[in-house]
Amino acid sequence: MDSVQGSASCVVPTAAARVRLRPLEPTGVQILGGLLGDRQRVNREVTIPHGTEQLERAGTFENLRVAAGRSQRGRRGMVFSDSDVYKWLEALAWETQRQPSPELERLATETTELVAAAQQPDGYLNSYWQLEGRERWSDLEMGHELYCAGHLLQAGVAAARAGSPRLLGIARRVGDLLVDVFGSDSDPRTDGHPEIEVALVELYRETADRRYLDLADKLTSRRGHGFFAGGRFELSYYQDVEPVRGSRSIVGHAVRALYLAAGVTDLYAETGDAALLDAMLAQWDDLVSTKLYLTGGVGSRHEGEAIGDPYELPPDRAYCETCASIASIMWNWRLLLVTGESRFADLIERTLYNGFLAGHSLDGRSFFYANPLQSRGGDARHSWNPVACCPPNIMRLLASLHHYLATVNDRGVQLHQYATSTVRAVVPSVGPVELAVETGYPWSGSVTVEVVACSDAEWTLSLRVPAWARRAGVDGAAVEPACNAEVTRRWKPGDRVELELDVSPRLTLPNPRIDAVRGCVALERGPVVYCFEQADLAAGANLDDVALRTDAAPTDSDPPARLGGVPGVSVAGVVRDVEGWKRAGYLDVRELPRDGAATPARLLAIPYFTWANRGDGGMRAWLPRFD
Amino acid sequence: MDSVQGSASCVVPTAAARVRLRPLEPTGVQILGGLLGDRQRVNREVTIPHGTEQLERAGTFENLRVAAGRSQRGRRGMVFSDSDVYKWLEALAWETQRQPSPELERLATETTELVAAAQQPDGYLNSYWQLEGRERWSDLEMGHELYCAGHLLQAGVAAARAGSPRLLGIARRVGDLLVDVFGSDSDPRTDGHPEIEVALVELYRETADRRYLDLADKLTSRRGHGFFAGGRFELSYYQDVEPVRGSRSIVGHAVRALYLAAGVTDLYAETGDAALLDAMLAQWDDLVSTKLYLTGGVGSRHEGEAIGDPYELPPDRAYCETCASIASIMWNWRLLLVTGESRFADLIERTLYNGFLAGHSLDGRSFFYANPLQSRGGDARHSWNPVACCPPNIMRLLASLHHYLATVNDRGVQLHQYATSTVRAVVPSVGPVELAVETGYPWSGSVTVEVVACSDAEWTLSLRVPAWARRAGVDGAAVEPACNAEVTRRWKPGDRVELELDVSPRLTLPNPRIDAVRGCVALERGPVVYCFEQADLAAGANLDDVALRTDAAPTDSDPPARLGGVPGVSVAGVVRDVEGWKRAGYLDVRELPRDGAATPARLLAIPYFTWANRGDGGMRAWLPRFD
Repeated sequence: MDSVQGSASCVVPTAAARVRLRPLEPTGVQILGGLLGDRQRVNREVTIPHGTEQLERAGTFENLRVAAGRSQRGRRGMVFSDSDVYKWLEALAWETQRQPSPELERLATETTELVAAAQQPDGYLNSYWQLEGRERWSDLEMGHELYCAGHLLQAGVAAARAGSPRLLGIARRVGDLLVDVFGSDSDPRTDGHPEIEVALVELYRETADRRYLDLADKLTSRRGHGFFAGGRFELSYYQDVEPVRGSRSIVGHAVRALYLAAGVTDLYAETGDAALLDAMLAQWDDLVSTKLYLTGGVGSRHEGEAIGDPYELPPDRAYCETCASIASIMWNWRLLLVTGESRFADLIERTLYNGFLAGHSLDGRSFFYANPLQSRGGDARHSWNPVACCPPNIMRLLASLHHYLATVNDRGVQLHQYATSTVRAVVPSVGPVELAVETGYPWSGSVTVEVVACSDAEWTLSLRVPAWARRAGVDGAAVEPACNAEVTRRWKPGDRVELELDVSPRLTLPNPRIDAVRGCVALERGPVVYCFEQADLAAGANLDDVALRTDAAPTDSDPPARLGGVPGVSVAGVVRDVEGWKRAGYLDVRELPRDGAATPARLLAIPYFTWANRGDGGMRAWLPRFD
Repeated sequence: MDSVQGSASCVVPTAAARVRLRPLEPTGVQILGGLLGDRQRVNREVTIPHGTEQLERAGTFENLRVAAGRSQRGRRGMVFSDSDVYKWLEALAWETQRQPSPELERLATETTELVAAAQQPDGYLNSYWQLEGRERWSDLEMGHELYCAGHLLQAGVAAARAGSPRLLGIARRVGDLLVDVFGSDSDPRTDGHPEIEVALVELYRETADRRYLDLADKLTSRRGHGFFAGGRFELSYYQDVEPVRGSRSIVGHAVRALYLAAGVTDLYAETGDAALLDAMLAQWDDLVSTKLYLTGGVGSRHEGEAIGDPYELPPDRAYCETCASIASIMWNWRLLLVTGESRFADLIERTLYNGFLAGHSLDGRSFFYANPLQSRGGDARHSWNPVACCPPNIMRLLASLHHYLATVNDRGVQLHQYATSTVRAVVPSVGPVELAVETGYPWSGSVTVEVVACSDAEWTLSLRVPAWARRAGVDGAAVEPACNAEVTRRWKPGDRVELELDVSPRLTLPNPRIDAVRGCVALERGPVVYCFEQADLAAGANLDDVALRTDAAPTDSDPPARLGGVPGVSVAGVVRDVEGWKRAGYLDVRELPRDGAATPARLLAIPYFTWANRGDGGMRAWLPRFD
């Protein structure tokens, strides 16, 4: 198999691609510890084995066995269940690339053979459509056939980059079939659930077969002409309201919108079609200024799993599907490669430490599908779900997390996310560079970067300074937030740079147009959003009656019990007595009960992503202001 | 046909029923004008004929023709489409009872014959299940067979009370079949969508056949044992979490919950089973204190069309299905008959003038399914809907609106809702009483009741004093709000009583636990909730940047254009400049943009129920407070 690039991370632009930054080589970054290292370890040791068990228990592997003629049992699960296997296979690929494992390699090989056996002679592969007696491609709106194919393609590309080309061969046969079936210029069809686009671009990158890129372009360009008119949902659900080129609003089903955006950005990178990038940058602005949760989560409505209207951001009914956070990280990574701008790495960070990490429990064995910013109690992660898209998506992101930390370009090396790690890059015209990063990030804002090896040519070390950092310094000199701080010199081994970011806890206010959290304030510490749980309140106090003072700065406090040592934050507030309101929904402004006592209280906040690890009491990320 | 009572309104408790108040005789109340009279007129002249057309266009009549073997066309529409015809037939019954109409009578007769022809020999009747080749009763969760039967029973009872017994005969055959199929004591089955319960109690009342009452009891008592476990929704959706007796929370699909509550209250009235009434009163408290919109609307979630958590009352994503308002009025009417307490008539009033009336346009030709309290634009009523449950439900309620105005008991006559009308009642041991009511209600708070005819025995005239009335008087003497003011004397023709209610506009605050409208204020005038439309703002002002002052009293203003002469209200506010927030979703509390100018503005408010009659710009019933 021919490969355009020897590089092997999860996005590999071709040599001709319009990108300012490029991913590192296969094992360019190794995370050695800290929060992200711990999450990678739990993923490998607990979550992936748990996923293997659950895919067996749910019948998801079995469906492929039935399709392969190796089992007579009935098919089970959702129409898109095969994609759960493919995402899990992608996780195995990145994980075994990261660190060999005979057991994971055996599982991957066995399952790849099973997938091969289930594939039909013409390349078609989808256990639901093969077994349920329905005609192929007869329900593009909700049938998820190209969606499943997309995840297979991504898994095949990942496996090849990790050194196992077998799954890529299967994926190519699927890709070739798609080119045959959907490649005609006059064909108006596309898939109701985007995902194939981003996968086809990567398949092109891995195989240099331009037909895949062309098909990605066609499937993208067919959107916005009402192909799904008369379907079960409004056209926005499928991103079919208006053509992508020229579309400046991000709308509809959140995961669909964000997978599409990742694909469109990749398509821009490989085609240079500026209208695509214009649309993506406009949609990003629309997202960040009017449709983004503080946690980086996206999706305001359970109904239609949709991005809502501008400023429609309810904390309690937030959908913020874990898959949407993952898709957002995928999209922002591509925008970062294309533009080099720190704001995209900022959003990766916000999403990673909050909306994404909250999607699984600290022990790695249970999962949230929706990630609200407020719960009135009763919300608990599940060990699996009939719609199991999120858990294997979490697995593949955690297994490839190190891909998102650093990049390289002609001028040097860029660090975007901070973790204790080694970073190895080859800077063109400079040669190999090796860095050792040490930090307690995100809990500490001190990051030490030591040059371990390099030639004596001049190059630039670039360090992202997050927008949230009110004070930041590089080697003692103040730097502005919201940029990449650059240090250019002739480096020698042993040289060190110290980045200092102020992660002291801070209070955050919402845009006045966000109706749902009017009069509220949130608490953040570095990149981490905090929240309040009923579990941490004094007996008798109700989380819904708590308010925060904004005239006193929050302070660090001891790690809360049973949360693995993450730092707590202490903040001044009150517990209000709303007894006078009992039984009244609404009262005449002139007949209000006198406010009862507002009892001062010292309130403990915990990182948002650790919520619901100590029972299913209430939780709030936004609390009313008391001032 | 035997009838327990000669009376003929929409709820007719038996002589033995546990009720404190009883409905009046057939044409006991005639509404002569005003807002309610106008709505009845538009319903008769426009909405019912429009509905007849739309039922034809949607194929809803045709489905019955196909089932009757009179047409070979395919069946169309939802599984429950027959119920649209039955609700329309019920509307025709009340309407022709109210005022004869050869045209409406002809339509009713023809359609009744069509229904008869579609009925199968064993009494079964449902065009979907007859024509789609699926087994009867094979999907009680979502199949709506008993739901449709319930609406047929109600239409049959209504037709009989209006003097046409033919449809009741059809309904009895359906009822008898249900008794045969579902009547066994060991049968665990019930319907996923309550409605049959309230219908069976009325069928019992109309026929004196106790088997129907017993079946209503059985179907009710089977709920809450997890019959629908493993279904498409959580058990709460079907009110199947816990047995009704002992259930103190109102949960799940709003229309299902409220139809069930109406049936359970009727069941209490006819059986005296106190546990049923206890549960209903507790659920009512739960509703009013934690789950009720200011408009009387019920249902906080589009997903599952559900009542949400306590205090989960978002204005923008409010569901507040028009059918839920109707079901709530049905339930509260029954609670009023059972208890005699004014709070139930208060809630009928709040629901009627706000959540219910908003469900159709002023011209009577278009309908909302959901009735939010905030719109960011783009919301318009539809002339019909594939799910057409609401429009014919509106028709039947408007056609029977006069039934809800007054009651009688051993002591006298009670007026609950005010409209210019004549009221004729027979007070036991007193004899016939005739009253003439004159009022500009709800716009004016002055109500004059004149005794037109009565014997010389002593009796009591009871006048509801709404809880919203800050000042109220009867013949010049102050009376407390939230009660029934009683005047007992020996009346003679020509005697008059003057009720004076203060309907001056007032500002209303929400319970602090309602997160979604924190920091907001609403405007009410008498029983009418007001709202603000983008259409009434000065050019360039955005409704989402408007805030209200609470330190100046709102005042009446001229009727807004194109709203049929309803009074406007003028209130002091500001339009805020939020330019500094543009493009930022969230900001550090210490980095907030300086507030831009807050430009004083005089704001025009219109009755909430008249919104979206002048285009589909934004609307808000709750505005932020500026103080």
